[in-house]
Amino acid sequence: MVRKQAGFGDRLIGATRRTGHPLCVGLDPHLDRIPPLFACGDMSPGDPATAGAVRAFLVAVCDRLEGRVAVVKPQLAFFERLGWQGMRALCEVVEHAQRRGLLVLLDAKRGDIGSTSVAYAEALLGPDAPFRGDAVTLSPWLGPDTIEPFANRANVTGGGLFVLVRTSNPGAGDFQDAELAAPPRAGVRTVCELVAASLEPLARSLEGAETGWSSLGIVVGADSPAQAERLRDLLPRSLFLVPGYGAQGGSADDAVRCFVAGPAGPEGGVVNSSRAVLFPGAGHTADAGQWERALDDAVTRACDDLGQALSRRAA
Amino acid sequence: MVRKQAGFGDRLIGATRRTGHPLCVGLDPHLDRIPPLFACGDMSPGDPATAGAVRAFLVAVCDRLEGRVAVVKPQLAFFERLGWQGMRALCEVVEHAQRRGLLVLLDAKRGDIGSTSVAYAEALLGPDAPFRGDAVTLSPWLGPDTIEPFANRANVTGGGLFVLVRTSNPGAGDFQDAELAAPPRAGVRTVCELVAASLEPLARSLEGAETGWSSLGIVVGADSPAQAERLRDLLPRSLFLVPGYGAQGGSADDAVRCFVAGPAGPEGGVVNSSRAVLFPGAGHTADAGQWERALDDAVTRACDDLGQALSRRAA
Repeated sequence: MVRKQAGFGDRLIGATRRTGHPLCVGLDPHLDRIPPLFACGDMSPGDPATAGAVRAFLVAVCDRLEGRVAVVKPQLAFFERLGWQGMRALCEVVEHAQRRGLLVLLDAKRGDIGSTSVAYAEALLGPDAPFRGDAVTLSPWLGPDTIEPFANRANVTGGGLFVLVRTSNPGAGDFQDAELAAPPRAGVRTVCELVAASLEPLARSLEGAETGWSSLGIVVGADSPAQAERLRDLLPRSLFLVPGYGAQGGSADDAVRCFVAGPAGPEGGVVNSSRAVLFPGAGHTADAGQWERALDDAVTRACDDLGQALSRRAA
Repeated sequence: MVRKQAGFGDRLIGATRRTGHPLCVGLDPHLDRIPPLFACGDMSPGDPATAGAVRAFLVAVCDRLEGRVAVVKPQLAFFERLGWQGMRALCEVVEHAQRRGLLVLLDAKRGDIGSTSVAYAEALLGPDAPFRGDAVTLSPWLGPDTIEPFANRANVTGGGLFVLVRTSNPGAGDFQDAELAAPPRAGVRTVCELVAASLEPLARSLEGAETGWSSLGIVVGADSPAQAERLRDLLPRSLFLVPGYGAQGGSADDAVRCFVAGPAGPEGGVVNSSRAVLFPGAGHTADAGQWERALDDAVTRACDDLGQALSRRAA
């Protein structure tokens, strides 16, 4: 396969420099929150019309986000919940988002071995893949060798990877923060730091020619700002995908703690917000104008909040 | 929801007692290995006919396996590789397998947080779920709290879980075997043992009324027999799903090292074989009779091999 486009690291940082903020909008279509404007019937997962309503809602969301944000992050669980009809809706939403100029990061958290890993990479990553993702989230639990097939695929398609290193759920620390008896090197104290250190050669091999940012990034929750700084030392050119901001409780200042100086201000990752942007209170309406204003206002609020945090970080 | 059937631990052990062996057949439809009897066109992933050929092949496989094996394990990556048409084929294969009396273990290796975990559980587990699995494989990396929504769902649907504790790929040990600086208790030395110990309360809560075997099992590769014995001590009533037997190189004796004495011989898990059963050399043919004999012979070989290992273990 001939490499079709610039590396994902370059593409994502290029896009966030243009939008001027690092907001990533999570597309998590909770059925009980879809605005009445888009809902069909009782929105039960078993009703084939439900996938259509989800698709219509997210297509409209992407229309509002065009030119305002760099990247959207569909959460695959909510599509899989709707069966194959949901996966078809996912394909359609991804294609539409890309037509609107948005990068699409598939939140799949996949992780498997050998030829199975290759199959997932071919399913999810690149313009020839059925699900056409620009990037994908991965679990590292099975070992660094299980990330390699995705890195190979990212290299030929200009795709990106975000490996789950330190997540933001209540039990995240139980295994990820466990301390090692025999750390392999300085700066590595815990299991998640061991994971980060093991990714360093692959991350280096995927550094972009234009910005120097790697197409192999990591996921680090906004609730662990001190950990984020240690992980930044281990992976200086990896983009961080930061969940846990907004509805999940992390502050904007904590969310951008991993950012470093760039040509147009601090940069080095994207900060995800799902519910606060996708389902603002005033957006639960059957009125199209009111819904559009509510979504636009929610995007503005998140961008302003993150922008102020970046100004404080730059100071 | 009213609980519809016995727990998965009871159902699986009941079925393997009836078949007399612990073979689980992995349904990994590698496109370049589908027998000419079932292939359509060039079997490229982008051709919509390919998903139909995969479905026809696996439906025929399940017809041969009826009454001979207890459980089949579709690998979701190979269906996702074919897009939403592949996921539709998966639904059809699962329904057909269950009509043939086979239990279906979805090899999904999912793992996510909070409401996302709930969505995956509702997508994959139970007769009301679109993908209707009897059981599912899960990654523990994000923490024990991310397993709970699946355990809750398993409890109400009579479903089963197999958590990835020690896998069989080359890099499996890099994180899973890392030694802990401060083990929380005796018998816990490494990260994978920490994971196993953390699952113990949930495993206990899902022990079956009939056999005492839990519906929360773990995955432990056939290449780590010594580790399997230590994990058996930590989870005495959890079923082990053992990959890495056969084509992946683990011996039958190593594969059943975690088995313990039961009423009808050693029991305590299932041993997976994918390629050796699904794609025997003599089965690569356009002749229906020859294909059927090749598949039947491959099943017999694996059952005999495992049966002899169990006899040696019982001795």
